[in-house]
Amino acid sequence: MALLFSRLQRNILKDPGRLPADLTTLKFGQSFAPHMLVCDWSRSKGWSDPQITPLQKFQIHPASSCFHYGVECFEGLKAFRGPKGEVRLFRPDKNVERLKTSMARLELPFDFEGKELERLMSALVAVDREFVPRGDGYSLYIRPTVIGTHEALGVSPSDSCKLFVISSPVGPYYPTGFKPVSLLAEKTAVRAWPGGTGAYKLGANYAIALGPQTEAQRKGFSQVLWLFGPDDQVTEAGTMNLVVVFGDAKSGEVKEIVTPPLSDGMILPGVTRDSALELCRQWYGSGKVSERRCTMKEVLNASKEGQLLEAFGLGTAAVISPVQRINYEGKDIHVPLLVDGKMGPVAKRVWEAITSIQYGRTPSPWSVVCE
Amino acid sequence: MALLFSRLQRNILKDPGRLPADLTTLKFGQSFAPHMLVCDWSRSKGWSDPQITPLQKFQIHPASSCFHYGVECFEGLKAFRGPKGEVRLFRPDKNVERLKTSMARLELPFDFEGKELERLMSALVAVDREFVPRGDGYSLYIRPTVIGTHEALGVSPSDSCKLFVISSPVGPYYPTGFKPVSLLAEKTAVRAWPGGTGAYKLGANYAIALGPQTEAQRKGFSQVLWLFGPDDQVTEAGTMNLVVVFGDAKSGEVKEIVTPPLSDGMILPGVTRDSALELCRQWYGSGKVSERRCTMKEVLNASKEGQLLEAFGLGTAAVISPVQRINYEGKDIHVPLLVDGKMGPVAKRVWEAITSIQYGRTPSPWSVVCE
Repeated sequence: MALLFSRLQRNILKDPGRLPADLTTLKFGQSFAPHMLVCDWSRSKGWSDPQITPLQKFQIHPASSCFHYGVECFEGLKAFRGPKGEVRLFRPDKNVERLKTSMARLELPFDFEGKELERLMSALVAVDREFVPRGDGYSLYIRPTVIGTHEALGVSPSDSCKLFVISSPVGPYYPTGFKPVSLLAEKTAVRAWPGGTGAYKLGANYAIALGPQTEAQRKGFSQVLWLFGPDDQVTEAGTMNLVVVFGDAKSGEVKEIVTPPLSDGMILPGVTRDSALELCRQWYGSGKVSERRCTMKEVLNASKEGQLLEAFGLGTAAVISPVQRINYEGKDIHVPLLVDGKMGPVAKRVWEAITSIQYGRTPSPWSVVCE
Repeated sequence: MALLFSRLQRNILKDPGRLPADLTTLKFGQSFAPHMLVCDWSRSKGWSDPQITPLQKFQIHPASSCFHYGVECFEGLKAFRGPKGEVRLFRPDKNVERLKTSMARLELPFDFEGKELERLMSALVAVDREFVPRGDGYSLYIRPTVIGTHEALGVSPSDSCKLFVISSPVGPYYPTGFKPVSLLAEKTAVRAWPGGTGAYKLGANYAIALGPQTEAQRKGFSQVLWLFGPDDQVTEAGTMNLVVVFGDAKSGEVKEIVTPPLSDGMILPGVTRDSALELCRQWYGSGKVSERRCTMKEVLNASKEGQLLEAFGLGTAAVISPVQRINYEGKDIHVPLLVDGKMGPVAKRVWEAITSIQYGRTPSPWSVVCE
């Protein structure tokens, strides 16, 4: 039985409530839209009829594989209000495809058409459209998730799972304007490695990262800069992809825009990452955009020689997180912030182009209007 | 508020049912004893009163950290029937201490006295004592688990968690006698990494391992032999610690009993591993027992030179899993099985000593009678 939009059942609240009058009270991932999408799968019966129901707690058996063996993966994407009040998703096909690769990595079923799940998500957002806040920087954060519900303690592929989608109305990631972040380059803890699961959006990757991330914050840094290998390659920043821009700090000339490659299997193939790379290739020429390994030594030397222009994180939550400082082996590397002290010109250009597409101000096939 | 035995509440079933008449129908981790222990923690209120209640489903919010960020860790230990029908736990203090290190790695609270949790587990087993099956090879498998219940999508330490203990009556791991396993030495997927979480009993480690493990079984092998590094160090076998015995295959003389070291942070500090090492040091002298790195090249050369005596896995579920074959780079390495074709003499000695202690036939401080 396939995961099919045509089988969707709806159990809609008569009075779903409304967004708070003061949108600035919204906290990321803590207030939720009133409905969710749920679909259960079992090896013997396939997918149940997908249901849109009021958001409610799940009843889960204590022996379920999601509690013991980390059988869980998720996605994050956003719905935005366009100029005419229409609701738009940003590249939902990319998230659905990545969810399928994550499910495959966990031996969960991934044999459905991505388009069907896109339509189901779209239907959920349509039901909760009053919870897609209006206003610049506002959006509805959407969280598709799959958890193993196999009720047995043996370590084996789950015979059942639950796919669900919840959503959370959110405000600007930086409510008072961009706040450049400081990174602690982590020499001991490792987020991911070749042959591991860093390239998949599994709960496991976040379990590994949580401790070092918290420790970095205790030390006064915003995020961990995850390194890898004896040559301290940069990989990701916190839960974001990372871009470093090399060039001439005096003239501002951009020579190379670098992000770690997907080929090592350690880097999450981020949707914002992919979008930024495509835009930068258009703007700067593909010769100046590199997916390659980059070491801290290179960043450090570039900084000393006035060749370090920018560093920023890329992710769905913030789109862009400009980096102002990297602490490496106890010493600070300062990253120039050339535009009004908040972000560099490449970051600013990426930020403006992507948000303009997301909010429907710039027409693009990346922005999909909900039915 | 501490996690305290003195605060234990009991809600006991009047008719808890009984074990099946035919114990051979028991399947590992699929039938459960009728009660569980539950205790909830929150950052503001500390630990709730621990409760023994009927086994039932949990009500968990869809945004909980256990569903998204792999905030989950567990333990596995067993209760055995002694000669007088008494119920015995095997080294429960080791499991409780390891659970605390896992909780710390996940930024969960670990500031309780281990002894309190031991007493709570003991009380649970006492309530379900009729579900500790009698007979050689039978036991009650106990699964302490902690899951993050923080209901927010931001990646941050959980403000709440649930500690619970469920149990499952189980039969002999090898009902028809020992069945030596075949291992597929895995060259691509990597279970753990220095700076990762391999040394902690987190769900994350099992999520990583599930796919390669399933793939090995599809190819006809029992387990993956997890390798690490360019020199293909052996690390673990499936979900077990690994021991390799070198010596003289002709005379059977044991020269060195080797297991990978804990110092690299990749190896689970197994309770069976620790027990076997301690026993082997007593029997063979500590000079012959090595916790050190061991490469496939060394195993391969030893095999060619008649110096490979035994290989076996160590874990709570099976105690010992004798290895008869390792497939490495497409070729089989055969491991001699010197005792009745089922396991080598070191494995057999470890097996007999540990099970004899577990079932109370040999007195030992490792075997703790439930109150």
